[in-house]
Amino acid sequence: MASCTICLPALMMLVLDLNTVESVWPLPQKLAISEERYPLSPTHFNFYYGEDQASIMKDCSLLDSAFTRYFPLIFPDLTSGKPVMWYLAIVQLVQQEEDGTYFINKTEIEDFPSFQYRGILLDTSRHFLPLKAILNTLDAMAYSKFNVFHWHIVDDPSFPYQSRTFPDLSSKGAYHPMSHIYTQSDVRRVLTHARLRGIRVIPEFDSPGHTQSWGKGQPNLLTPCYKGSSPSGTFGPINPASALSYIFMSQFLKEVTSVFPDPYFHLGGDEVNFSCWQSNPDVRAFMQKMGFGKDYTKLESFYMENIVNITSNLNKTSIVWQDVFDYHERIPKDTILHIWKGLPAQYKAETSRMTKAGHRVLLGAPWYINHIAYGQDWRISYNVQPLNFSGTEEQKKLVIGGEVSMWGEYVDATNLSPRLWPRACAAAERLWSDESQTRSAEAAFPRLQAFRCSLLRRGVRAEPLSPGHCSDEYRGI
Amino acid sequence: MASCTICLPALMMLVLDLNTVESVWPLPQKLAISEERYPLSPTHFNFYYGEDQASIMKDCSLLDSAFTRYFPLIFPDLTSGKPVMWYLAIVQLVQQEEDGTYFINKTEIEDFPSFQYRGILLDTSRHFLPLKAILNTLDAMAYSKFNVFHWHIVDDPSFPYQSRTFPDLSSKGAYHPMSHIYTQSDVRRVLTHARLRGIRVIPEFDSPGHTQSWGKGQPNLLTPCYKGSSPSGTFGPINPASALSYIFMSQFLKEVTSVFPDPYFHLGGDEVNFSCWQSNPDVRAFMQKMGFGKDYTKLESFYMENIVNITSNLNKTSIVWQDVFDYHERIPKDTILHIWKGLPAQYKAETSRMTKAGHRVLLGAPWYINHIAYGQDWRISYNVQPLNFSGTEEQKKLVIGGEVSMWGEYVDATNLSPRLWPRACAAAERLWSDESQTRSAEAAFPRLQAFRCSLLRRGVRAEPLSPGHCSDEYRGI
Repeated sequence: MASCTICLPALMMLVLDLNTVESVWPLPQKLAISEERYPLSPTHFNFYYGEDQASIMKDCSLLDSAFTRYFPLIFPDLTSGKPVMWYLAIVQLVQQEEDGTYFINKTEIEDFPSFQYRGILLDTSRHFLPLKAILNTLDAMAYSKFNVFHWHIVDDPSFPYQSRTFPDLSSKGAYHPMSHIYTQSDVRRVLTHARLRGIRVIPEFDSPGHTQSWGKGQPNLLTPCYKGSSPSGTFGPINPASALSYIFMSQFLKEVTSVFPDPYFHLGGDEVNFSCWQSNPDVRAFMQKMGFGKDYTKLESFYMENIVNITSNLNKTSIVWQDVFDYHERIPKDTILHIWKGLPAQYKAETSRMTKAGHRVLLGAPWYINHIAYGQDWRISYNVQPLNFSGTEEQKKLVIGGEVSMWGEYVDATNLSPRLWPRACAAAERLWSDESQTRSAEAAFPRLQAFRCSLLRRGVRAEPLSPGHCSDEYRGI
Repeated sequence: MASCTICLPALMMLVLDLNTVESVWPLPQKLAISEERYPLSPTHFNFYYGEDQASIMKDCSLLDSAFTRYFPLIFPDLTSGKPVMWYLAIVQLVQQEEDGTYFINKTEIEDFPSFQYRGILLDTSRHFLPLKAILNTLDAMAYSKFNVFHWHIVDDPSFPYQSRTFPDLSSKGAYHPMSHIYTQSDVRRVLTHARLRGIRVIPEFDSPGHTQSWGKGQPNLLTPCYKGSSPSGTFGPINPASALSYIFMSQFLKEVTSVFPDPYFHLGGDEVNFSCWQSNPDVRAFMQKMGFGKDYTKLESFYMENIVNITSNLNKTSIVWQDVFDYHERIPKDTILHIWKGLPAQYKAETSRMTKAGHRVLLGAPWYINHIAYGQDWRISYNVQPLNFSGTEEQKKLVIGGEVSMWGEYVDATNLSPRLWPRACAAAERLWSDESQTRSAEAAFPRLQAFRCSLLRRGVRAEPLSPGHCSDEYRGI
């Protein structure tokens, strides 16, 4: 949270001009719209820092660039970008008469997020996403007040991150060494684009599993699997019995923790398959030497403990998938646990256990929206209650937020936007707004429909929620 | 089938250059690819009409324009469009070396469709589809050898067709009277674009149900529903008891059967709700007068019989949804029945009954691909066996083909292409290719993946089928 967007006071009071509550998404904590209507003249329109804010924010380039960016969104008929001071939620309140004049109803808003972490995961390994698809997603995320881009950048199928220290990782592990990679300059563009929109970028370099593509450019990193007494030619997870693995991971993490400035860093740790480790005589010997018996979860824990320590020494807070907690008790207290498994009964019980152990928790399980179903499946996402688990008030405070995951098995640039929007908006409201005011998906529906039309007007390829139309349809085809 | 594409001989022999069978979709009836490879030079490349074809086809502007259109698809590096003679399936056979030179393996193809009717339904009422979305769909249809665009142009939610005779139908019944309509010129563009690609356009003006939007611009057409002894203010299906309905339908059908030149015309006839008719005293009196008792299916049949007769007098062959057959025995023999209901057991039994009654049948039920599921749901479409029903050889011949439906509840221009492609390709192959050679979805999978990459290269926003990449990814974002 190193960006100056957090300098914004959590509570803002604005008095403006609007006529339908339907168009504000996610719902502000307090919103009072009066009948009183004010015309808005784009040429005379200006926002100013409030007196109490002027001293800390007057040179905030983040806000200044946001004002510039939002001007054409507020006044879409005008092509010039005159800087204005503006608060994002209010943009949806400005409306146009049929003759083109702008107006807004007198409105009071008091607002702050219910959860500090409101993330979206994109998977750029199963399919490569061109830079533009990522930047477009960041734009749409800002409109829905998502503030974390969890970049699941590499995985088994491909390694698109172009490392400075280990260039072979992408030159041999990407789908294509030139056209399907993220250069250092690409990463910087993502970081800048995100920062200007108040979005943190948390990369994930998942290990020791999900690393098949790493092995192509880094020999001796993965575990050679054996068939009987000889290597089968296939490879398993990173070799936890080899000192080389830890030397490599130290060097590699040193690079990537400096490339990505966010204080959080996602280390993965999920779905480690033990069969290859079990087949390998060196790994078995190591197990014996360490006194792990036949319990390979101890070996996985040993590996993750080392990786978390390396990351900690690089001054980052680790996030890991729930598997690490499930297999391991000695995980450092400040490690954030990311829940991804199971139906509500399971993830609620898991949240209870983790918070009881004093860990901060990130809720992913209910929002795997790469899984699609016919019809209005956004309602399922909307009805999630992140704090509805058995625990004390102190435990509830440890739930830092949630994350929408768009895994890439069946998703690339051709269908990313319409699968993500407006379906992800349901979680956006759940994580931002007051739950007691937003219990009913039925009541939220017309507001979400109006917001989807706003997204279209802003160029987001957001799919429809029901039969109907928007006055400004999507223009990008 | 008034276009000259059908002048193409059903059997073609071509001797050319190719190296992987994976890239031909739908699979030709006979395909023999040899190892022998020929370089292709775009500048010296030409196709000529065969001697047996030259006399009938030398002035076929359809083919000449196809050659022009396909040249840049065959040789994507070249910008000029030099006319060549070309057969569509072969396009997928031309490949490029890494140095950019083109080649093709020696290949023999003998080909013809298994079914004459291979359709796609688009629904432009639940959401308006801009002209460009329709034209793009026609392009992609041609690549998969679909040859019928079933234009479900109007329905309850909106009436986008701008009628010459009854302009109020769209000025009052469309979502917007200017931006959400198809003008006569728009319709002509669709017809021309389709004709050049060997695609027939069969419009559907569904009645007597699914007509709420008609009522806005045509007073006295729909049945006023009653609550007790007085009108409730709502309306039901077209009023089958009023002579005005038949006068209107005659005039309207006279117009639209002339606007759409195809000899087939879809009259709908599905999902008629009887409750409004039952509530209306005039309709009840008409039932009594006609001796229909309390059987409203007889009233529906009476209406449809009249509409089919009107259409027949306009020299069109009617297509109707299966409901009309289910409720009515006296339907004219040449009426084509469109099956849309039920699981395999049901639609197979229905096919048996209809063909036994001597009707031609169009199979829609298994291909409602607006219904989506997570993962590779194209396999479900692929495993359909249209002729696997109980019946004689004569009955089997009455199945003229099938249709993929993309109903518009949750589909508009934002997500149409990736929902349709490549999922619809599964039905395309089922309807074109020899079933005995294409039984295994598993075997078809790599070929479909390669074809999906071809679609991307041609600018079709076709979604991915599994993790992976294409050498030419989609460039349109």
